[in-house]
Amino acid sequence: MTRLAIVGGSDAGISAALRARELDPSAEVTVVVADAYPNYSICGIPYYFTGEVQPWQSLAHRTAADLEATGMRLRLDTLATRIDVAGRRLEVRGPDGSVEELAYDELVVGTGALPSHAGIAGLDALGPEQGVHVMHSMGDTFALDRDLAERQPASAIIVGAGYVGLEMAEAFTARGMRVTQLQRGPEVLSTLDPELGALIHEEIAGHGVEVVTGTVVRAIEQGPTGLTVMADRAGRPATFTADLVLLVVGVRPNTELLAEAGAVLGAGGAVVVDREMRTGLPHIWAAGDGVVTHHLLLGTTYLPLGTTSHKQGRVAGENAIGGEARFAGSVGTQVVKVFDLVAGRTGLRDQDATAAGFTPVTVASVADDHKRYYPGAHPIRFRITGDERDGWLLGAQLVGRHGTEVAKRVDTFATALHAGFSIEQLSDLDLSYTPPLGSPWDAVQVAAQAWAAQRRARALAGV
Amino acid sequence: MTRLAIVGGSDAGISAALRARELDPSAEVTVVVADAYPNYSICGIPYYFTGEVQPWQSLAHRTAADLEATGMRLRLDTLATRIDVAGRRLEVRGPDGSVEELAYDELVVGTGALPSHAGIAGLDALGPEQGVHVMHSMGDTFALDRDLAERQPASAIIVGAGYVGLEMAEAFTARGMRVTQLQRGPEVLSTLDPELGALIHEEIAGHGVEVVTGTVVRAIEQGPTGLTVMADRAGRPATFTADLVLLVVGVRPNTELLAEAGAVLGAGGAVVVDREMRTGLPHIWAAGDGVVTHHLLLGTTYLPLGTTSHKQGRVAGENAIGGEARFAGSVGTQVVKVFDLVAGRTGLRDQDATAAGFTPVTVASVADDHKRYYPGAHPIRFRITGDERDGWLLGAQLVGRHGTEVAKRVDTFATALHAGFSIEQLSDLDLSYTPPLGSPWDAVQVAAQAWAAQRRARALAGV
Repeated sequence: MTRLAIVGGSDAGISAALRARELDPSAEVTVVVADAYPNYSICGIPYYFTGEVQPWQSLAHRTAADLEATGMRLRLDTLATRIDVAGRRLEVRGPDGSVEELAYDELVVGTGALPSHAGIAGLDALGPEQGVHVMHSMGDTFALDRDLAERQPASAIIVGAGYVGLEMAEAFTARGMRVTQLQRGPEVLSTLDPELGALIHEEIAGHGVEVVTGTVVRAIEQGPTGLTVMADRAGRPATFTADLVLLVVGVRPNTELLAEAGAVLGAGGAVVVDREMRTGLPHIWAAGDGVVTHHLLLGTTYLPLGTTSHKQGRVAGENAIGGEARFAGSVGTQVVKVFDLVAGRTGLRDQDATAAGFTPVTVASVADDHKRYYPGAHPIRFRITGDERDGWLLGAQLVGRHGTEVAKRVDTFATALHAGFSIEQLSDLDLSYTPPLGSPWDAVQVAAQAWAAQRRARALAGV
Repeated sequence: MTRLAIVGGSDAGISAALRARELDPSAEVTVVVADAYPNYSICGIPYYFTGEVQPWQSLAHRTAADLEATGMRLRLDTLATRIDVAGRRLEVRGPDGSVEELAYDELVVGTGALPSHAGIAGLDALGPEQGVHVMHSMGDTFALDRDLAERQPASAIIVGAGYVGLEMAEAFTARGMRVTQLQRGPEVLSTLDPELGALIHEEIAGHGVEVVTGTVVRAIEQGPTGLTVMADRAGRPATFTADLVLLVVGVRPNTELLAEAGAVLGAGGAVVVDREMRTGLPHIWAAGDGVVTHHLLLGTTYLPLGTTSHKQGRVAGENAIGGEARFAGSVGTQVVKVFDLVAGRTGLRDQDATAAGFTPVTVASVADDHKRYYPGAHPIRFRITGDERDGWLLGAQLVGRHGTEVAKRVDTFATALHAGFSIEQLSDLDLSYTPPLGSPWDAVQVAAQAWAAQRRARALAGV
């Protein structure tokens, strides 16, 4: 019987607890959760604000009762404050402020990440009470919900145009708010090449969102008529005002607990773990947004994603009770729906691949999601990245309308990346076809063939 | 400069011609086409009869002008009658009946398949004029179209409930006809296990189709009030009458031309080819529904599919002009939309796998296509087949509503089969996730985990 303590009630921690209980029903599993909302789908919060998900309780992947029914014990509203590594004891502070030490045989830490403030001045004095929000926890969700209900703000500035920023632009727009979206880089959704980001830009602009790119936010101030965001735009000052500001500029790993215990920090300031999720501290495992990510093409990096947290947590939970699991590695697969478009990506783009020592070439192409003669066909726009030297697939980016099965087409590329396939091999795959849902050469293969044809043309031209 | 003659204007022949012209613009490519409709999407014909595809010309993947613009020459309404193997000459009979010999350096034969008659008596005297149809060519399509327009039949019997039979049941129903669907086996869509075929049965029955399984058709007769189909049902005679009969009971390879030239016939009576699409006859290549299929899990079999014909044709075209391509192999991926359901499959089922020497176990499971809290989630029903000994993925069958991205989820399994992944490895794949389109563990992974959990349970139980 293993006494397994787990810190963190989100993806990594709960996945670890579920896996441990699944494999070893004798394991005594205690999960220490900082708030009262274990196993909530943080990725679903934007859809609470669009009104598509109601009530907020339905955002729970599993209820606390579901979790406890698996035999794990939940310690809610309890903060893990210190690890006594040698003594194998976890110090926690409960909801009533009392401090206690939990003895453990094995410990899994999944403390996740914290919202980044991107060095913006003025945030010490500004929070939900002043209409300045972040969105990372159910607490943040309730604060924003309350603010929207009480003040009925007519306008919002969203700082950041990544996945959550774009989803929240849709949510605020759906609520009838005027939205200004500020983005540091040259185009929205910077995890895609700007050629495809531009399609997302057009989509949100077409729904009335004012998009301002190339804008670095310096400070936020509260004034008599609302909040003022001060920024640099192309080297010149620019100010924006609105009733509400939402900061969604990324996250930083929450490493305090493990760092104090002596864990080593690595890529992105995250806790270094091996592919078995060992921290190097005896009997301490870690997983999720607080730890480094093993990437199949990049080696060790920092790439916090819910899917990865689930997988890392599962590995940590299995190994903590004596298993031999290994995190297979991320390929950076991501997808987002923005109004009527879906954008997906997996693997590397040119700049990532070059930095990692590859010789990438990216080729753009367009292919219909299904046979054009059947009603409802729409083009999917691809950017395929492959290695010029050996022809290996390095990455793929896709944008298409909702309904064009972009998300699961990204998965074909992701699976091919796991398999280490060349781009030519994509044409060999026996993919499904029926006219309402595909083509004899699936769109994925049309894009792969376009890449291969351009490579052949370059070779013939002696480039 | 290679003089390349190609027999057949459907998937295999045209794919060969396109590939040859793409890789070698000096190749002199002549395609001999038996009718006037090269490069038609035969898979699209049912959607012409639903009314979704109009006019019939839009069923062309490419027009004759598109094809000729690539530099190939088309000889339409021309029948290839004999191959002089030693002399490298192809005898053809043109539209005016004149016989001619075409000299070639290399020959690709893609004569496809012919509709099977399944040993049904009476068919010698019954054809489109009598209201008895098959559906394999544009000629068949026009004949059926004319019959529907002229006689306005109120009822149809469809013999066969495979892909085309089910699609045509939908088409006739959409036209207001009363449809009786006769199926030899115990359940419709016999390429899926009956547990999933039953869902398709329910779907078509729910749309008014009368489905009669376990029924072997013996003969068809024309009577004063319509056509009578005589059958055995559970050992007892049964008769069915209707205004029209459509026979869609599969195909047999059309091998006459190559067999007379001395080609060897193998699996399913199809022409034996190697993975380079060589027939063994000097300078003669073959591809498509007339040749055997190299299957990644079964070895050599006969499995005529349009996707395979495209790939084989591409290989034949490349090799005929001196290339070194190789058909990577089929895994039997297929998908069909039937009213509001989509059914897909790839790889092997229990009986196929057992016959091929595996030790298969199939596990059923259900997983939502996306997070249930987001509107529009629907369950996908899975049957995953894996090898009990080593845990390798052998096959997958999925049924879900149209819109649940079943087709592209089948592709994840198909790609994993090409990669030779174990079922546990499916859980490791970095698949895409956003709440409107998936789950942190995609439905594909939930199904894989269900299989793995049952295997673990059997091992614990000592089964």
